[in-house]
Amino acid sequence: MASCFSGGAAYVDGRYMPLDQATIPIIDRGYRRSDVTYDVASVWRGQFFRLDDHIARFRRSMTALRLSPGETDDDIRFIMQRCVQLSGLRDAYVAIDCLRGRPVFGMPHDPAKARNYIVAFAQPWIDLITPEVQARGAHFIVAKVRRIPSDSIDQTVKNFHWGDLTRGLFEVLDAGADGCVLLDHAGYVTEGPGYNIFCVKDREISTPNSGVLEGITRRSVIEICSELGIPYRIRPIAAEELFQADEIFVTSTAGGPMPVTRIDGHIMGNDRPGPLSSKLKAAFWKKRESGWHGTPVAYGNDTEE
Amino acid sequence: MASCFSGGAAYVDGRYMPLDQATIPIIDRGYRRSDVTYDVASVWRGQFFRLDDHIARFRRSMTALRLSPGETDDDIRFIMQRCVQLSGLRDAYVAIDCLRGRPVFGMPHDPAKARNYIVAFAQPWIDLITPEVQARGAHFIVAKVRRIPSDSIDQTVKNFHWGDLTRGLFEVLDAGADGCVLLDHAGYVTEGPGYNIFCVKDREISTPNSGVLEGITRRSVIEICSELGIPYRIRPIAAEELFQADEIFVTSTAGGPMPVTRIDGHIMGNDRPGPLSSKLKAAFWKKRESGWHGTPVAYGNDTEE
Repeated sequence: MASCFSGGAAYVDGRYMPLDQATIPIIDRGYRRSDVTYDVASVWRGQFFRLDDHIARFRRSMTALRLSPGETDDDIRFIMQRCVQLSGLRDAYVAIDCLRGRPVFGMPHDPAKARNYIVAFAQPWIDLITPEVQARGAHFIVAKVRRIPSDSIDQTVKNFHWGDLTRGLFEVLDAGADGCVLLDHAGYVTEGPGYNIFCVKDREISTPNSGVLEGITRRSVIEICSELGIPYRIRPIAAEELFQADEIFVTSTAGGPMPVTRIDGHIMGNDRPGPLSSKLKAAFWKKRESGWHGTPVAYGNDTEE
Repeated sequence: MASCFSGGAAYVDGRYMPLDQATIPIIDRGYRRSDVTYDVASVWRGQFFRLDDHIARFRRSMTALRLSPGETDDDIRFIMQRCVQLSGLRDAYVAIDCLRGRPVFGMPHDPAKARNYIVAFAQPWIDLITPEVQARGAHFIVAKVRRIPSDSIDQTVKNFHWGDLTRGLFEVLDAGADGCVLLDHAGYVTEGPGYNIFCVKDREISTPNSGVLEGITRRSVIEICSELGIPYRIRPIAAEELFQADEIFVTSTAGGPMPVTRIDGHIMGNDRPGPLSSKLKAAFWKKRESGWHGTPVAYGNDTEE
């Protein structure tokens, strides 16, 4: 049994299965109207990071979209644990989705009538930016495509409306870069595909205050700044500030804090990860290693189910 | 065999199956990043409407998103025909999607590397607005949520980024209305969930020129206006014009032209479908009945495969 779960384990609407067997109907509004929210937690060295914070955010996202699956928060915690346990992974990316469900026939435009349900899976850990690129510092561009504004799609509710971010990824590929920053319609910095953005100027750290996901890793970095006495501000950041920054770094569940050394060809510092970016990255992983905000995975606890 | 296809027939990446067995992987970018485009054609009384126009628009959408499945346009035409044929439906809604596919492991952010594929299905015809409501005229609201702008998501490329439209549908349900119009960020009329908007003032017909899907039914109505000598303009329409309109109607593949009689409680004409809306609706269905832009479904031609 273990072998078929080794590529990842999934939960779909009440049933566990190997990840490569996990599917959803093509007529589900979750796919067909991207009527779904999700969250992603990480497991590193056998520990979830801020599991309850991810579950709380996921519940807020579901409430905002009027999604109410049968599963309680305790059920969701159990499902995420169980997926990791089945996969046997020590380092994993653990996703949890809530889909609107199938439309009621004859009422295609009544999303309130559909039965909402949960999908989850654990798969091997992925770094959004490879360790090699993180070591030299990532090369970023400012994408031409603009981020979907929050009065169209609330960006604090994690969503799969990634068309703008996917266009940004193609701009990255065309430019031979490693990542990108999207601006809003007023020319302010928002976020990139899968990460929040921070910049550093005169030893002060800033990250955008609106139109972005309130990332759990972003929050963790802000907590570390408080602890270490590093000044920070959560505020609007104009695009121009990126080119005047001493350092830029991004944060993601899939990688933690990751240094950026070039933006649109503009080289920061000595073309190496900056001192504050490196300090925060090191502090983050040292704290993770010590079990900070950690929840051990219940491996081998097969009697639990 | 026929019975299991009676609820609809599907094609998924090379294989035909009953619609209720048609699924996609939960890790596909088509679902997980809404990295997909689609089109929908209608079959009415055994005839496709403007099948080649739908296929041409679908191909333009795929090209815009850099999607290239193995199927040619001829293959796509055959697949759509075959789905209807398998279902045996005389009146059907026929969808065709192209999905980005599974991410290449370890390269989650390289959409260019995924293998793109086609999904299609035929299911029983649905009117977006019920015939009863069409007969009295639909009651619409102007939604508070704003349409996703085209410099974030190109709205001429048919997409599942429906979060704004779904929010609009919940506003409709809360208001006890039948449909809604979304405005852009400058306060101009765009479209609604599944339909283009037209308004009539002093016998001239207008429909928005940008930020909307270039609907096939919209185009058909414009052609009928030309034929009948009804003046029309494709131009920006300010929200205020909706409340000064003599008539409003919407157009969709799932229903043709459909009259609207109230907008935010403002009653047009005598609270019955207006004369030009009714004339265009009647002309549209009369022309459809006569085989206008029609392609017969190849029913019973089982030797074709």
